[in-house]
Amino acid sequence: MTQPATLPRLPDLLEADVVDLTRVLCDIPSVSGDEGPLADAIEAALAPVPHLEVLRDGDAVVARTHLGRSRRAVVAGHIDTVPVAGNLPSELRVVDGQEVLWGRGSVDMLGGVAVALHLAARLTAPAWDVTWVFYDHEEVAADLNGLGRLAERHPDWLAADFAVLGEPSNAGIEGGCNGTIQVVVTTTGRAAHTGRAWRGENAIHAAAPVLARLAEYEARAVDVDGLVYREGLSAVGITGGIATNVVPDRCEVRVNYRFAPSRSLEEAEAHVREVFAGFDVTVVDGAPGARPGLDRPGVPDFIAAVSRVTGGSPAPKYGWTDVSRFAALGVPAVNFGPGDPSLAHADDEHCPTDQIRACAAALEAWLTEGAP
Amino acid sequence: MTQPATLPRLPDLLEADVVDLTRVLCDIPSVSGDEGPLADAIEAALAPVPHLEVLRDGDAVVARTHLGRSRRAVVAGHIDTVPVAGNLPSELRVVDGQEVLWGRGSVDMLGGVAVALHLAARLTAPAWDVTWVFYDHEEVAADLNGLGRLAERHPDWLAADFAVLGEPSNAGIEGGCNGTIQVVVTTTGRAAHTGRAWRGENAIHAAAPVLARLAEYEARAVDVDGLVYREGLSAVGITGGIATNVVPDRCEVRVNYRFAPSRSLEEAEAHVREVFAGFDVTVVDGAPGARPGLDRPGVPDFIAAVSRVTGGSPAPKYGWTDVSRFAALGVPAVNFGPGDPSLAHADDEHCPTDQIRACAAALEAWLTEGAP
Repeated sequence: MTQPATLPRLPDLLEADVVDLTRVLCDIPSVSGDEGPLADAIEAALAPVPHLEVLRDGDAVVARTHLGRSRRAVVAGHIDTVPVAGNLPSELRVVDGQEVLWGRGSVDMLGGVAVALHLAARLTAPAWDVTWVFYDHEEVAADLNGLGRLAERHPDWLAADFAVLGEPSNAGIEGGCNGTIQVVVTTTGRAAHTGRAWRGENAIHAAAPVLARLAEYEARAVDVDGLVYREGLSAVGITGGIATNVVPDRCEVRVNYRFAPSRSLEEAEAHVREVFAGFDVTVVDGAPGARPGLDRPGVPDFIAAVSRVTGGSPAPKYGWTDVSRFAALGVPAVNFGPGDPSLAHADDEHCPTDQIRACAAALEAWLTEGAP
Repeated sequence: MTQPATLPRLPDLLEADVVDLTRVLCDIPSVSGDEGPLADAIEAALAPVPHLEVLRDGDAVVARTHLGRSRRAVVAGHIDTVPVAGNLPSELRVVDGQEVLWGRGSVDMLGGVAVALHLAARLTAPAWDVTWVFYDHEEVAADLNGLGRLAERHPDWLAADFAVLGEPSNAGIEGGCNGTIQVVVTTTGRAAHTGRAWRGENAIHAAAPVLARLAEYEARAVDVDGLVYREGLSAVGITGGIATNVVPDRCEVRVNYRFAPSRSLEEAEAHVREVFAGFDVTVVDGAPGARPGLDRPGVPDFIAAVSRVTGGSPAPKYGWTDVSRFAALGVPAVNFGPGDPSLAHADDEHCPTDQIRACAAALEAWLTEGAP
């Protein structure tokens, strides 16, 4: 991409308003793969902060306190966006009587990044030691994910007792996430001309019980650490047949099982195999869920602080997010960030500015309460 | 295609052996669309025959007697072939101890054409008036079919009490044909993210009863004019799903019903709609079957004559052939020709020469017995 004429710089983090800071972040293009200038600007803004150690790997920047607290929290966010759709530079607009920041990244998730930067500089003596993580390549293939790279190369940088991921959650706490597994259920038969159908065995007909089991399946709702996760077992694709006069000898049903984080990926696979007992089941993809960990020591303080600011209470996260990567490291994690996730990636992506301020206020309240 | 240096000519039809004549026909390339030279040669060979009136439309040649007989038979064959696959010029070979003519067109269906030409010139006073039909464009799209064109432009040329189509049938009588109808059964639902599957309605799951009805369906075997036609109801394709994380809102099952010629196309459609009652059914294609008409006046003589030569008895034809076009004109029709239909279009297409001779002998016996 085109290098800006002058390297972008962030405003003074101690002076800038968090909404203004979000606008600046949005206006530094950082589509996945081109996060360099924004990562440079973040590193340059944090490097002089006396209470932070600043680390870098690729276009991921990590800044952390070393205050000797008994607990450490990670506050993390990705700095890349999906491609711009004529929706930059960002603007303040009024939508339905509410001030919003309009533009790419305002929801997913430079609001959350701005909140973290704002507090990283400001909270000189938080109640928890804090590791602020700004990472790259979240919006592209999972194997490029910057958080995944940090987990592999520098797991110590992510070590913590609790993690807050600033993904958009309408400024509510969305705990953990369901796991997901994709399988293909295959039926086979024997090809024949349909003019002599009795000489064949129809693989599509043989898939009737597969669809019947899906149709009859009753998905669970599972309480995990106080949040109720709804599961789902869905056919997401079906293919069979090669010509309009041929009895097909193969039919494939692709099935997506979203499972509560009380189940491991292995347990989820075993469950799907049990549902489709007697059929050929091949796992094609899968990712474990993440427990919300809301009962872990200190986490109720976070919930209480957010509730005092927003009036909300935690809800389960159904979609799969990078909280799962923390779960895999043994770190309970929640999503908590400004913006409506259904507007992420949309051409009309926009975020209420009061949600950005509410998230900053709630995190600040949590991390300052009980501080020495 | 390349025009041959000299226009091809057929040997003297009264002199030539029928197998030699088949070889000559095979060696005049006549892939669909390039039947002109062969049609010219056929017309030139028949024009001087005193007892025949010769007619032409495009590359179809029709030759008929006007002997004032009480019944008229059509003996028909298409003169085009599928593309040559290095299997010309034709050769006499021995396969499994049996002499065969090897090459494109030997089965589908220049053997049948040679038999007709051989007899057209030879039978000066057949027991039936005979219309010999040699037509183009059978191996391509149905709307190009030369027999269909004759039926539309010159239905009087095809008027008859009975028709013999020389399509390969291993020198046995294969009577009539099943009809065929293609429908698409569609289920719909409501799209949703699979992470919130309960907000959607899964159209693939909704197709479970469609497949169940197909799996449970018991196809009929129906006696029509003394031949037993087996039916079949087959899913030939199924599609649904647009992404691996989306509850699909549409699923389509394509179904092919092959039905006995006692059922009209309209009755077949009604039956399929009854099987899938409650579902959206769209007819996408269909063609009626053809009754064998083996009980029509004079036809038992044909069966008896063939049986005396070959020892065989009539069987139903399951595949759809141009006999159906005769049925649509009210002319009962059978398939009767040399060659194994499973070798049609094959690179190793070859036809036992004794089947060519048997077909010629059987037709000659039928058309001369009882002649004045």
